[in-house]
Amino acid sequence: MVRKILIIGAGKSTSFLLDYLLEKSDSENLKVTIGDLDTASIPEHIKSHPNCSVRTLDIFKEDERTSAIQESDLVISMLPARFHIKIAEDCLTYKKHLVTASYISPELKKLNEKVTESNLVFMNEIGLDPGIDHMSAMQVIDRIRDKGGKILLFESFCGGLVAPEFDNNLWNYKFTWNPRNVVLAGQGGTAKFIQEGTYKYIPYHKLFRRTEFFEVEGYGKFEGYANRDSLNYREAYGLQDALTIYRGTMRRVGFSKAWNIFVQLGATDDTYTIEDSENMTYREFINLFLPYSPTDSVELKLRHYLKIDQDDSTWEKLVELNLFDKTRTIGIPDATPAQALQKILEDKWTLGETEKDMIVMYHKFGYELNGEKKQIDSKLVVIGEDRVHTAMAKTVGLPVAIAALKILNGKITTPGVQMPISKEVYQSILKELETLGINFKEYEVPYLGYNPDSVAS
Amino acid sequence: MVRKILIIGAGKSTSFLLDYLLEKSDSENLKVTIGDLDTASIPEHIKSHPNCSVRTLDIFKEDERTSAIQESDLVISMLPARFHIKIAEDCLTYKKHLVTASYISPELKKLNEKVTESNLVFMNEIGLDPGIDHMSAMQVIDRIRDKGGKILLFESFCGGLVAPEFDNNLWNYKFTWNPRNVVLAGQGGTAKFIQEGTYKYIPYHKLFRRTEFFEVEGYGKFEGYANRDSLNYREAYGLQDALTIYRGTMRRVGFSKAWNIFVQLGATDDTYTIEDSENMTYREFINLFLPYSPTDSVELKLRHYLKIDQDDSTWEKLVELNLFDKTRTIGIPDATPAQALQKILEDKWTLGETEKDMIVMYHKFGYELNGEKKQIDSKLVVIGEDRVHTAMAKTVGLPVAIAALKILNGKITTPGVQMPISKEVYQSILKELETLGINFKEYEVPYLGYNPDSVAS
Repeated sequence: MVRKILIIGAGKSTSFLLDYLLEKSDSENLKVTIGDLDTASIPEHIKSHPNCSVRTLDIFKEDERTSAIQESDLVISMLPARFHIKIAEDCLTYKKHLVTASYISPELKKLNEKVTESNLVFMNEIGLDPGIDHMSAMQVIDRIRDKGGKILLFESFCGGLVAPEFDNNLWNYKFTWNPRNVVLAGQGGTAKFIQEGTYKYIPYHKLFRRTEFFEVEGYGKFEGYANRDSLNYREAYGLQDALTIYRGTMRRVGFSKAWNIFVQLGATDDTYTIEDSENMTYREFINLFLPYSPTDSVELKLRHYLKIDQDDSTWEKLVELNLFDKTRTIGIPDATPAQALQKILEDKWTLGETEKDMIVMYHKFGYELNGEKKQIDSKLVVIGEDRVHTAMAKTVGLPVAIAALKILNGKITTPGVQMPISKEVYQSILKELETLGINFKEYEVPYLGYNPDSVAS
Repeated sequence: MVRKILIIGAGKSTSFLLDYLLEKSDSENLKVTIGDLDTASIPEHIKSHPNCSVRTLDIFKEDERTSAIQESDLVISMLPARFHIKIAEDCLTYKKHLVTASYISPELKKLNEKVTESNLVFMNEIGLDPGIDHMSAMQVIDRIRDKGGKILLFESFCGGLVAPEFDNNLWNYKFTWNPRNVVLAGQGGTAKFIQEGTYKYIPYHKLFRRTEFFEVEGYGKFEGYANRDSLNYREAYGLQDALTIYRGTMRRVGFSKAWNIFVQLGATDDTYTIEDSENMTYREFINLFLPYSPTDSVELKLRHYLKIDQDDSTWEKLVELNLFDKTRTIGIPDATPAQALQKILEDKWTLGETEKDMIVMYHKFGYELNGEKKQIDSKLVVIGEDRVHTAMAKTVGLPVAIAALKILNGKITTPGVQMPISKEVYQSILKELETLGINFKEYEVPYLGYNPDSVAS
């Protein structure tokens, strides 16, 4: 019997997802329909695949949306998270399974009872982060628990970066994902976590000064800053008794210190628009955030304001971005500071045609077993294949694709609005991901508890 | 004919307002009704005044509210600003004048056309700030313009402080008004202003490091930090061509540098609640915002984190607040950081029974007249009489009272939802305020433009 999968939204992150499903479409008897507002950008080899069809789909058009969903057996929504709820409601109405890589919204969560009653699987948070992080963490946590161990510490960091061979700017960073999310990262709420049993709160304006450092064998040093949501999964992971729970984002060492300059200036603010941003030079943009002076340069005012020493190498990072340029203009009318900054960064941080990205994930598990304290560090590095087949698309898309097929094949059956933290779900998916080049390396290390030396304040 | 004034809300700021109206009640033939949720706290000499009556009034009870308003000729609302709109709508329905000391909300503004058609005066922003600031500024601005001068610079600062003889803590500050507003001051949006023709934006986390300094003859030095709203009155004041527009809040020198420590820590945040705040010590509260360490003290961690030198006198300000105390507890369940901080501050900053407050206002007017650049600085200091008859209550309440009477007496007649920036309104009110001890002193000073030396970055 043919199984019909509807994929809504064919953006950047769907290259591996589509390849995976179409490759298996003959053996697994799949028909894949891609629904998107703009079908023109879907690659020819996908469109012309005999088991693939493409339809124009505006999810705000009720009839287009419901007819596409009705005709499918399972729906994958790769749209931005805010659009999922409409699709989820239809999936419930027409009794279709649903897979997304997004966080479970409160509205979606409310459907859980009805979804469960209808014996449907609404699998969410099954991309990279959230997704692979949940699965790989729960695999180690469950293993430690199954042996009788007790988790003391859980730290988890993830970052989308540029592959080492193309890592050639002073920030050691390029946009490999939505640039806007990078500029706004950390905004919208205080970061909350627990260190050695003590709650800790970091406001946005201090976030990039409270980094930790990591070493990944073969890939050098990284740093991490706290996510807002470290405590969100405490119950789901069963970590109510853990002394340290900390989730964060990884960058190359030095990124955060330099990024903090933009935060301190207020240049990442997205809540108001700048007067006459269109014709404003990069230099004038920076000067918006500095005190007026009839004589002093933007450079000196900035150094003085943020106490940047003459020999601080962070300065070179700013110069590299042409931040003090008197001719380049923002070119965007009514831009917020964040939009203007994004424009400046895109000049320098756009991944080149032939360049590759890199995904890094780092978990630390501290635990007590038979009276002994131990620690496992688990690390993942994935390098992209090209600009379309990025490491990001691979790590987001493959878990989604695998989960979708396993649901159709009755390998994942527990119904409800869920994320992939049960053995039923993560074991077989992680196993298959390993065969596709997504595998963690584990290291036994001494348990240090939360190591204060790794904190740069 | 008797004129009936309904005063809704008999809080701290109404002592002078009530005294003024009741004192004139025989000669002016006034009957004053005070409507409040809690009438018990209204002083006996007010309640028992023959021209005063008191009624319990819950503005959310439609019948209580409308019947009280219907029976009056003019309504004064001293409630928090968000409650005005219901009252304003009734005033429109029953054709009653309205006076408030609050900012004109967008909803209130929308009533302007109907209010004007009904020939009613809805006078707002007629307290201290907003209020006396508008009137005193427009008086000088109009005078300069009437002579043919052109305004180049307008800066305006106001602060509620403790009177010099009771100014005996290291912060040179006590709560003379709503402590919560002081803790939250500056939050909720980027400060925007213009300096010498250039737009400037200061994010909250830098606000208290961008102060200006002032000297007030006989009262020493003050500092000011920017308000969010400097540009709000640009059009109303007719300052579209001014090169510098800057409004701010005054404190004693050194306050902002120390306050910035709380801002940097995140201790003024009001957007989330702290776990187990009730039993938390002051020391534990501060430690929430500092990195974990198994060995280092809260003191050293704080000094290191915020780079507070060993000999920085700001430190003594923190010690004075018992910030590192291991026994005093917050005592508030589910407190936000801002609420917890307020509790700590109230231990030390509460105005004593016999202590007095002080209001300071400082305007700078730079202008060009006959090809010459000039400047007028205009300064106001008001000292409170006692804890009830505070300078704050005087400067907020008297303009409200005077305006109300002038509206009833047909001296202020131009209808509409308005603030006191027309000559018709401010001239006679400022004149009467002078007789009541609220008078500005003017100083001719050299025009320096925006003086960069006064900026502490």
